[in-house]
Amino acid sequence: MRKVLIIGGGGMVGQKLAHHLGAHGLNGDADIEVTLFDVGYPERNAAPAAARLTGNLTDPAMTARLAALRADVIFHLAAIVSGESETDFDKGWATNMMSVWTFLEDLRRENMASGGTYVPRLVFTSSIAVFGDPYPDKIGDEFLCAPRTSYGAQKAISELMIGDVSRKGFIDGIAIRLPTICVRPGKANLAASSFFSGIIREPLNGKQAILPVPDTVRHWHASPRSAVGFLTHAAGLDTARLEGRRALSLPGVSCTVAEQIEALRRAAGNDAVALIRQQPDAAITKIVAGWPRDFDTARARALGFRAEDSFDQIVKVYIDEDLPNA
Amino acid sequence: MRKVLIIGGGGMVGQKLAHHLGAHGLNGDADIEVTLFDVGYPERNAAPAAARLTGNLTDPAMTARLAALRADVIFHLAAIVSGESETDFDKGWATNMMSVWTFLEDLRRENMASGGTYVPRLVFTSSIAVFGDPYPDKIGDEFLCAPRTSYGAQKAISELMIGDVSRKGFIDGIAIRLPTICVRPGKANLAASSFFSGIIREPLNGKQAILPVPDTVRHWHASPRSAVGFLTHAAGLDTARLEGRRALSLPGVSCTVAEQIEALRRAAGNDAVALIRQQPDAAITKIVAGWPRDFDTARARALGFRAEDSFDQIVKVYIDEDLPNA
Repeated sequence: MRKVLIIGGGGMVGQKLAHHLGAHGLNGDADIEVTLFDVGYPERNAAPAAARLTGNLTDPAMTARLAALRADVIFHLAAIVSGESETDFDKGWATNMMSVWTFLEDLRRENMASGGTYVPRLVFTSSIAVFGDPYPDKIGDEFLCAPRTSYGAQKAISELMIGDVSRKGFIDGIAIRLPTICVRPGKANLAASSFFSGIIREPLNGKQAILPVPDTVRHWHASPRSAVGFLTHAAGLDTARLEGRRALSLPGVSCTVAEQIEALRRAAGNDAVALIRQQPDAAITKIVAGWPRDFDTARARALGFRAEDSFDQIVKVYIDEDLPNA
Repeated sequence: MRKVLIIGGGGMVGQKLAHHLGAHGLNGDADIEVTLFDVGYPERNAAPAAARLTGNLTDPAMTARLAALRADVIFHLAAIVSGESETDFDKGWATNMMSVWTFLEDLRRENMASGGTYVPRLVFTSSIAVFGDPYPDKIGDEFLCAPRTSYGAQKAISELMIGDVSRKGFIDGIAIRLPTICVRPGKANLAASSFFSGIIREPLNGKQAILPVPDTVRHWHASPRSAVGFLTHAAGLDTARLEGRRALSLPGVSCTVAEQIEALRRAAGNDAVALIRQQPDAAITKIVAGWPRDFDTARARALGFRAEDSFDQIVKVYIDEDLPNA
């Protein structure tokens, strides 16, 4: 039986992953035991798990306890989000950088205590925030990481740490840079990216949505279902194929907001589109202008990572998976 | 009067810098007070300084004390070298990564305690070890950092930390990736790169030198004099011109070992060249094969950084500056 640990197992993607593992196993292997860790869990429709641990990653006793579980596969999805890392410098660096290093040290200690036999697969969710403008039209696999946020710097640093601890053989890590995950179920949040989901989700639920940016804005998307696919694929990947470069940008759909809206129109008609209200917000427009718009993910595709081919498919995933429970 | 602190002030480049500051001031400004910090200092021909502090950067009380000096310009040259970082994982990460973060936190505390008025210029020596093969023919300014050593990962991480702490306005930092500094004065050391200097230095001193790699090996060099020029130029640079990308690769001379040897022949004749003995070493050849060979440093050149134009000039710097004292 393989032990699976999901750090950040109470979040949206963590719960989707845990539901998937409960229903389908890990890459077809049903002989797994899933432990979740997070600061809290949803009350409704909670995903199945052998154990749900609660705590904070900045507590060294907690990361040591998580490492001592000696999980075979560890998904690390937990982070202080971009906006909060920008406003709370101490909290962002403590959680997104220092606790990652502490946890890697804990895993190395377990590796050494096992005489080198315990080498966990660590799947770490990085972010396209590791990149900073100016960008080429498509960001390729050899483009530099020059982040323009604390969050992006913390993720880029974590990638480098995981790369080196893996190179030394203490863990077997991979860091995957997820596109913006869209359409997020649930409520709007305060993230600057929230509207990318909102302009699809709210109209599909018969509610009005605010569009704070021009519809010419282009961005990089994948569905929550693709996120789960990325994570499980990374867990099963032969990491020798990474040839020592253990961080990679993942496939997605590059489209403009206008193209998103046309996909909504095709799925739900003009009445749905009429629920989108343009209300320009200079602050959000400025933030979003600095974000990556398109990628050439040749390496990830060659390694078998797959996302949707169109935004229509992304809308369909929401309608199939989340709209019934909304 | 400006306070200048050189962390790593007892090393070869630190001493060259301190000698330069003593003789010429900092970019022409003689009204400076220089404090050195290192684990130790040379006994012979020691550079002038107002104070020579001794200690270890992994001691948090020491980094706090250094930050409390509130130096206007801080040169950070100290590191566990590449080879030792590879063999002593704990020591390398503690010194080259964790102590950098601790020191940045100390500087941030001084910044906040000063009500934001204390914003030191930090000039940090990074390394071309932040890059890992495979490389393009020339590594450009937008090529990814994918290090293949712990040392390279620690330097790349320090660059990201310095970039973010600077972006937030707590310090005004710049990280410069030095070429291999050649011809190093003094004795051969155990570094894999030692022979690049040895095959020039030893014959110029009438001694035999060992060449452990094929003479077709190409590498990236600058003189100790250029290193001092890089550091002082970085100290005086208008960092707004970096446009938020505060790490950069510096100019150098790309040449093969055969071209190095021809430069020696032009400077000192066939008798000097005859002192080089080919003695292939498979281990060193393998390490060196993974190193960068050439760069396109358009950005650094546009910012006014200058190195030698030929290896002949690099040989001449050694003959002028160091041979008389050898």
